[in-house]
Amino acid sequence: MAAEDSAAPTRIMVAVNESTIKGYPHASISSRKAFDWTLSKIVRTNTSGFKLLFLHVQVPDEDGFDDMDSIYASPDDFKTMKRRDKIRGLHLLEYFVNHCHEIGVACEAWIKIGDPKEVICHEANRVQPDFLVLGSRGLGPFQKVFVGTVSEFCVKHADCPVIAIKRDASETPQDPVDD
Amino acid sequence: MAAEDSAAPTRIMVAVNESTIKGYPHASISSRKAFDWTLSKIVRTNTSGFKLLFLHVQVPDEDGFDDMDSIYASPDDFKTMKRRDKIRGLHLLEYFVNHCHEIGVACEAWIKIGDPKEVICHEANRVQPDFLVLGSRGLGPFQKVFVGTVSEFCVKHADCPVIAIKRDASETPQDPVDD
Repeated sequence: MAAEDSAAPTRIMVAVNESTIKGYPHASISSRKAFDWTLSKIVRTNTSGFKLLFLHVQVPDEDGFDDMDSIYASPDDFKTMKRRDKIRGLHLLEYFVNHCHEIGVACEAWIKIGDPKEVICHEANRVQPDFLVLGSRGLGPFQKVFVGTVSEFCVKHADCPVIAIKRDASETPQDPVDD
Repeated sequence: MAAEDSAAPTRIMVAVNESTIKGYPHASISSRKAFDWTLSKIVRTNTSGFKLLFLHVQVPDEDGFDDMDSIYASPDDFKTMKRRDKIRGLHLLEYFVNHCHEIGVACEAWIKIGDPKEVICHEANRVQPDFLVLGSRGLGPFQKVFVGTVSEFCVKHADCPVIAIKRDASETPQDPVDD
């Protein structure tokens, strides 16, 4: 039983995003929950049997709201902005990669830009993980039927199996949309 | 890393049904696929880290079609029929339990009667597994968007995370509804 897994590790893709309350580099409650769940319920002590693939999709700031107070005087200013966004995303991924490194689970992490549900499916179909784990806000009793548009979309459009992990009720902020 | 898992095992509920082509006691292609997937991708060599909970839901034969050629002359005949159904269901579960026993994975198995999607959710909410694995027919390219009414219902109504495992394309019979 304590024998090493000889087969290739199970490749689990985990989509992660930043906290809507605290912003970068903090991971959302549901991303952390999905990650912790994967480690405690799936990987457990079999750290060599799994490889985690972290995807962070950045949503393009189309309305420029995040940079309202910035001044753009040259093309370089825009490059700076894009670079800053990328660095923020890397700091987010660092949390997950560091933790995997500490416990000895192989991992990879990367950033893409676009509509999260579309990009997650595209990347899942490209990378072909064994399955995809998505954090989900798991809204209150009135919205219980709603599992999340991203996970619902991915269940239908990703080629691999998808599992949505809801936040614990105790972790849900007062406004359940905050994450 | 090769250390024993000290925490309670991860409890995985697997809903299984009989083959629509071969009937009892044969397991459906999608049930066997979901079971094999769970062992190879999740349990792997960590046999003490998991416990499998097999639920088989028998659909009541309301139109009596299955017993068209039988003769009912007394209340005992009906009891015989019910007993026979139960025995068929037990033979189905035997396949999964025997296999778990051979490889040393703890398991439990039981039968319920009713509407599969309703009963699976009810049992998942009662038994509280860590997650629920469902086999899915994974219909052809034209029905790709359709993941299966049972899994879609369970994703929405079960309290635990749900993962639907589609059959391999190579295992799909000519008529994809056959399973």
